[in-house]
Amino acid sequence: MVQAVEIQRTQNKKEKPSEQKLGFGVHYTDHMFILDYDAGSGWHSPRVVPYQPIVLDPAAKVFHYGQTVFEGLKAYRTEDGRVLLFRPNKNIQRLNRSNERLSIPYLEEDVFIDALKQLIEVDRDWIPSSPGTSLYIRPFIIATQPALGVAPSTQYKFMIIMSPVGAYYANGVNPVKIYVESHYVRAVNGGVGEAKTAGNYAAGLSAQEEAKAKGYEQVLWLDGVHRKYIEEVGSMNVFFKINGTVHTPALNGSILDGITRNSIIQQLQHWNIPVEERTISIEELYDYHEKGMLEEAFGTGTAAVISPIGELNWRGDKLIINNGETGELSAKLYESLTGIQTGTLPDPFGWMVEV
Amino acid sequence: MVQAVEIQRTQNKKEKPSEQKLGFGVHYTDHMFILDYDAGSGWHSPRVVPYQPIVLDPAAKVFHYGQTVFEGLKAYRTEDGRVLLFRPNKNIQRLNRSNERLSIPYLEEDVFIDALKQLIEVDRDWIPSSPGTSLYIRPFIIATQPALGVAPSTQYKFMIIMSPVGAYYANGVNPVKIYVESHYVRAVNGGVGEAKTAGNYAAGLSAQEEAKAKGYEQVLWLDGVHRKYIEEVGSMNVFFKINGTVHTPALNGSILDGITRNSIIQQLQHWNIPVEERTISIEELYDYHEKGMLEEAFGTGTAAVISPIGELNWRGDKLIINNGETGELSAKLYESLTGIQTGTLPDPFGWMVEV
Ligand SMILES: Cc1ncc(COP(=O)(O)O)c(C=O)c1O
Ligand SMILES: Cc1ncc(COP(=O)(O)O)c(C=O)c1O
Repeated sequence: MVQAVEIQRTQNKKEKPSEQKLGFGVHYTDHMFILDYDAGSGWHSPRVVPYQPIVLDPAAKVFHYGQTVFEGLKAYRTEDGRVLLFRPNKNIQRLNRSNERLSIPYLEEDVFIDALKQLIEVDRDWIPSSPGTSLYIRPFIIATQPALGVAPSTQYKFMIIMSPVGAYYANGVNPVKIYVESHYVRAVNGGVGEAKTAGNYAAGLSAQEEAKAKGYEQVLWLDGVHRKYIEEVGSMNVFFKINGTVHTPALNGSILDGITRNSIIQQLQHWNIPVEERTISIEELYDYHEKGMLEEAFGTGTAAVISPIGELNWRGDKLIINNGETGELSAKLYESLTGIQTGTLPDPFGWMVEV
Repeated sequence: MVQAVEIQRTQNKKEKPSEQKLGFGVHYTDHMFILDYDAGSGWHSPRVVPYQPIVLDPAAKVFHYGQTVFEGLKAYRTEDGRVLLFRPNKNIQRLNRSNERLSIPYLEEDVFIDALKQLIEVDRDWIPSSPGTSLYIRPFIIATQPALGVAPSTQYKFMIIMSPVGAYYANGVNPVKIYVESHYVRAVNGGVGEAKTAGNYAAGLSAQEEAKAKGYEQVLWLDGVHRKYIEEVGSMNVFFKINGTVHTPALNGSILDGITRNSIIQQLQHWNIPVEERTISIEELYDYHEKGMLEEAFGTGTAAVISPIGELNWRGDKLIINNGETGELSAKLYESLTGIQTGTLPDPFGWMVEV
């Protein structure tokens, strides 16, 4: 049941940053959404309040045992001034799968969608309109019970904060260089890799920093058991175009079920381009490359939408893909998806939700 | 360099809870310690302040990407009124290993020890003295920079909170029933299992809850690669006495390097009881039991010190250890360790640090 949302407007509107200098997750809008949970009363007291600090007991479980989940999605302003959300139902469905894995209570889909709509309505003037910009939305849940026993919390806060974000690629879509990680592991089957939970990102920081120091933008994660099957790239899903067919790692339990990934698969099927979800080894990729069959590679995620991969480095063995340039299919997918998202192209899939 | 600690005493001392009803991590003392970190200035502004809420931007990295580490140790009040800490240098050394894995800046050992001493001094009257009670100390670091990009934080808070805790075993040491976990995995080599970081505990909650529902106190974790080698039990290390020799899983990268574990090994060596750190499979354990050679099993950790295991259940196959009773060696180790910790026995190892 959707409860009435109390709306408390700020008296001090912030100055909006220049749309040319937004960056990612640096500026926050004037308001945020909060919903509380207590064992016994369930989720209660939905409210939109001025963006403000969270006040928590230092023993709150989120600080000690990491019981927390999050989501990420974007709102776009169309040329004719409408506001569109990209597949928000997928986010609440995934949030609930994450909740289940982290022993966090279920949150109703309608409550989530209503919260998004109410908050966006209040901060509507924060949605940028310059090409490539959007409003990044970060819903998250934290365990707030002050107790040091290792057990699920009896109290939670569900919150939504929002940040106007710039064009991911300042100078057009540019391929990235990726380091294939052989030492660190992001997630393993039986673990929390398919949940969108904080600990997965903390676990990836060292690898990311070491790759950066070697001149690589991100890492390609291999599976934790055999250390040879491809999982994800940084915090994106990954696709390879091999001899005309598009391949992506199957959802095996340790990979995040990306909403962009799912949409790319649908788009490819719609175009009658063959796409396969399967287990892909890193050796296999190098073999295909040797035979001249590895045509394109790209990461997919909400932040960048499509991120072409120009180079892989596995144990010092460098592999240049498509001469280090953005492939034709990568570019076409980027145009198509961002066109649907910003309303410049029709939406044959019924993905967009108007606010 | 140890900076002068500013001490701000509370004007409203709390009423102390009854030493008979302390529980674990439920009550907190009157004060806490805080030290801030900013890239550029490093760790600064050490202070003891009244126990109070933490105020953080909702975009603080700890909420989203789990960049956080913690420690756990105890202070004991001796019969003659002295206050003893158990091996605190081991805690700061482990904290720094966790810091390194989580891309959190190094914290000097002296700064940590001084912080502990200053805080304990101010809240000295909170250390309980009834048999089995102690003051549980929780140092932790959280990433506080408000930024949604996935990268190490530029700001942190190191804090210490303290909680008077009761006797772990209300009616003397009692064996626990343990469910051998075959579905969920706590950690894998290359991951963060050997770091004391929040995400590891969040990852374990589901298994723990499902085991509880089946009537088991905790789970025994198997390795994530082969799903057959023994790692830990709940959030304790684990030992098995087999035919007179004590066996414990070797530190392989996915197991926490427990300070109690290390102390038990030293104590056994001191008694000339053979002890082996090695890879132990669950099948092997069942085989030894069949042959009548599995004599005792116990978990070790700061909270319980020694927790005897009376039953294991692996895929429905129940194994009763020592008739479900506390073994002789388990009891002897418990007496010895808690005796050293509370000052009723001499400390041949030089473990205790007086405050
Ligand atoms: C680990 C990880 N993999 C993949 C993705 C891509 O998911 P989505 O397309 O839903 O943004 C994300 C989120 O951006 C992620 O955090
Ligand atoms: C996962 C885990 N294993 C083992 C231990 C035991 O370590 P220690 O003996 O240092 O308390 C702990 C901490 O209590 C732990 O959290």
